[in-house]
Amino acid sequence: MRNVEINMYNQEDSIVAISTPPGSGGIAVIRVSGSSAISIVDQIFQVKVGLLQAESHKAYWGKIVAPSQNTNKKVEFLDEVIVTLFRAPKSYTREDVVEISCHGGQFISHRILELVAERGARLAQPGEFTLRAFLSGRLDLSQAEAVADLIRAKTELSFKSALSQFQGAFSRQVKEIRQSLIEICSLLELELDFAEEDVEFVDRSEVEKKLRKTIDDIEIFLSTYERGKILREGAKLVIVGKPNVGKSSLLNALLKEERAIVTEIAGTTRDILEEQLDIRGVLFRVVDTAGIRESTYKIEQEGVLRTMKQIENADIVLFVFDGSEPFNKQDVELIKQIFTLRKQTGVIKNGFVGAINKIDLEVKLTRDELRKQFGNYPLVEISAKEHLGFRQLEELLIKFVLGNETFAQDEPLVTSIRQRQSLLVALESLNTASSSLIQGFSSEFLAVDLRAALDHLGEIIGEVTTEDILGNIFSKFCIGK
Amino acid sequence: MRNVEINMYNQEDSIVAISTPPGSGGIAVIRVSGSSAISIVDQIFQVKVGLLQAESHKAYWGKIVAPSQNTNKKVEFLDEVIVTLFRAPKSYTREDVVEISCHGGQFISHRILELVAERGARLAQPGEFTLRAFLSGRLDLSQAEAVADLIRAKTELSFKSALSQFQGAFSRQVKEIRQSLIEICSLLELELDFAEEDVEFVDRSEVEKKLRKTIDDIEIFLSTYERGKILREGAKLVIVGKPNVGKSSLLNALLKEERAIVTEIAGTTRDILEEQLDIRGVLFRVVDTAGIRESTYKIEQEGVLRTMKQIENADIVLFVFDGSEPFNKQDVELIKQIFTLRKQTGVIKNGFVGAINKIDLEVKLTRDELRKQFGNYPLVEISAKEHLGFRQLEELLIKFVLGNETFAQDEPLVTSIRQRQSLLVALESLNTASSSLIQGFSSEFLAVDLRAALDHLGEIIGEVTTEDILGNIFSKFCIGK
Repeated sequence: MRNVEINMYNQEDSIVAISTPPGSGGIAVIRVSGSSAISIVDQIFQVKVGLLQAESHKAYWGKIVAPSQNTNKKVEFLDEVIVTLFRAPKSYTREDVVEISCHGGQFISHRILELVAERGARLAQPGEFTLRAFLSGRLDLSQAEAVADLIRAKTELSFKSALSQFQGAFSRQVKEIRQSLIEICSLLELELDFAEEDVEFVDRSEVEKKLRKTIDDIEIFLSTYERGKILREGAKLVIVGKPNVGKSSLLNALLKEERAIVTEIAGTTRDILEEQLDIRGVLFRVVDTAGIRESTYKIEQEGVLRTMKQIENADIVLFVFDGSEPFNKQDVELIKQIFTLRKQTGVIKNGFVGAINKIDLEVKLTRDELRKQFGNYPLVEISAKEHLGFRQLEELLIKFVLGNETFAQDEPLVTSIRQRQSLLVALESLNTASSSLIQGFSSEFLAVDLRAALDHLGEIIGEVTTEDILGNIFSKFCIGK
Repeated sequence: MRNVEINMYNQEDSIVAISTPPGSGGIAVIRVSGSSAISIVDQIFQVKVGLLQAESHKAYWGKIVAPSQNTNKKVEFLDEVIVTLFRAPKSYTREDVVEISCHGGQFISHRILELVAERGARLAQPGEFTLRAFLSGRLDLSQAEAVADLIRAKTELSFKSALSQFQGAFSRQVKEIRQSLIEICSLLELELDFAEEDVEFVDRSEVEKKLRKTIDDIEIFLSTYERGKILREGAKLVIVGKPNVGKSSLLNALLKEERAIVTEIAGTTRDILEEQLDIRGVLFRVVDTAGIRESTYKIEQEGVLRTMKQIENADIVLFVFDGSEPFNKQDVELIKQIFTLRKQTGVIKNGFVGAINKIDLEVKLTRDELRKQFGNYPLVEISAKEHLGFRQLEELLIKFVLGNETFAQDEPLVTSIRQRQSLLVALESLNTASSSLIQGFSSEFLAVDLRAALDHLGEIIGEVTTEDILGNIFSKFCIGK
């Protein structure tokens, strides 16, 4: 058991939630976890053997009953269900867990939830089952965090990157870095103990080398963030171009060729202008600026601010040119404006891709002409109308997201702002320590920064944690997980 | 096994579906049923013991794997899941059933569905698992029909009436009626066998008595339809009244006092003007005609046709009067028009209820005055503003729906049009038989009608069935049940 004080979640309570998605379906599952989970469900579940005697990991068919309002009967029958017991510690939370699989209607699943709650279970907070899995030591914090990503994932690669984190590839990387820091610390502690005697046991150049190596490791790790973030959240692709070059036709053709993702949940707030596409396992969130306003290049027009915002936040800006017309001033102007905008906002990686559309018609726009303005950014010839060139276009997009490597499932990636933030502050502390070392400061100075770095790394995997960190992570979960 | 030929569903196939509601949640369940269900899932599930050797009704933790696109690896790990086996015949369908409980995300649940389908299972049609439960003889047709109602139910009483049908109360009633017909038939068959010898063995008055009794039973049974239908689908309550009598305030007060039902599923088509309320377990679908147009009484105005349609289809029309004003011509006109409209449309039960609102103010409208126009329909004094009189109002509404009896869970009710239709045609045949009997026609004549009645009753519980009937019933199911 981890020793974390968290007031917002009482760990003594047994908790209950509907673990299946809201709405109606064939079946719904109500999950109860905690020391009294079995005795609570026992009160409302009629089964041949008593539930208290039931075996772990076994499915029992029986009836849910409630106290009757009818004076002639003691209990009232509510539903036929399958109850499966998972006795501690062989369960998701490592506590006793009971899963009730009932008819998947809204009324009955909520009624059973109520019955369990009336008998003493508390309604679970979002992610509280997984929180318990973390607190019991079954998962570390970054694994627990990955559970929410597993559920949220909409494409193969976003799922796989979450799965890799869930399986601990990410944690192992962090632990390795921590381990090397702990070694450095123990070398220095040794020095500290004998400080009064003014003996210097440690080979400082050895420490310096180790520290340099650790800093490099963190920097390399941090460099996976951009890719990790896109795999996790999808790449924002904004389509720009002067009017009538075929921006909307391109989007429609993409939607037809690829798997459009339909969000099935009610009340999901999403930008109505954004279409979600699954291209070879990567999620692309595509915004057609024509849909915003047919005038990305006329700064004076209304709504342009909004378009500009989209371009600023894009991972990839896809320029569409009309191949059946000579390159003209409008194109030049558009390229200039967007290049300037992206430079101003300090985007690290200028994700520009150009598509010369309408190649089914007579071609009047050459690559050479375009190159003068568009530089060496990748270019591809397409016809949205005839569905030509889409394979190449997709390859360019995928290459931009994944780089030259293919995605290896066990490669640890930094995917969340929280992870990145902790790594950055750890890096800062280590850089301070490094310069202290070079300047010949005493071990006490170094130790403070090294400890700070250790703590920040510990936060990532939950070795060091606070209620704030936990609250922040688990509030993003759905209820019932 | 029932012997029904149904081409639209191949019973040899193993079938698969996501059985939990669409969308994201903590867990999703993929259900597979059929003779190859276990061997199919065995191919994608890694578990300590092989799945083929696994015990029935036991939950196994393991990993879903798929063939790897990576040439270095044979398989790729996809998710950690719990698989539960239900070996035939101890399962929902009486076939081998495998349930895979995975992370509740849209990507992963669909990916596993695909994997199972690729290995030879067919995607299940809506209700096909329950269809198989029917075909295997585990449920009769009206029980199977009740499964969809169990899931759809939004309030306690609609759930309980479905549950009663699911448990067979309804089927027992139909079977009893059929049994008495079969007895009559066998008496007549006896007579038939000896027809040539012109011997009349049967006491015709005995047959007549028995037939009369059966007809009575069906009529009584049919009379439960109105109540059954309202319990199943809810009562449509339309609020009418001249402007500013407080119709909307009344609706808002009801929504506050009672449990408003929020439909959680995306894409549910529902009349946006309709509010759903759970009053003591009964669903009321409330339409405030003020919301349609503030002019129910001015026939000439636009939109009135729509209002009139609502009133025609109402189970209960709730008249709101302003108690702080003297009764006036407008009220009289409104009552007259609506009474006439309801009479024209041939509504059987005139569900009129009157509410005298604003009793927090000085009362200027007496019951006596109102009675002259409103007749003996129930009246109640309320104040929507001060939340007075709601208990009495609700009692009137509930009494209208349930009659004087309270709802007994085991009472069989006719709840669907299909059931009612079959009962009506059976009744018609029996009435024909009855008059043939009285007119002294020979047994052959009677036998034809009696057989027809038997068949129609058989249709209800599925003793006699056709692909059309099945298609009609199961198409109303959700997928995965």
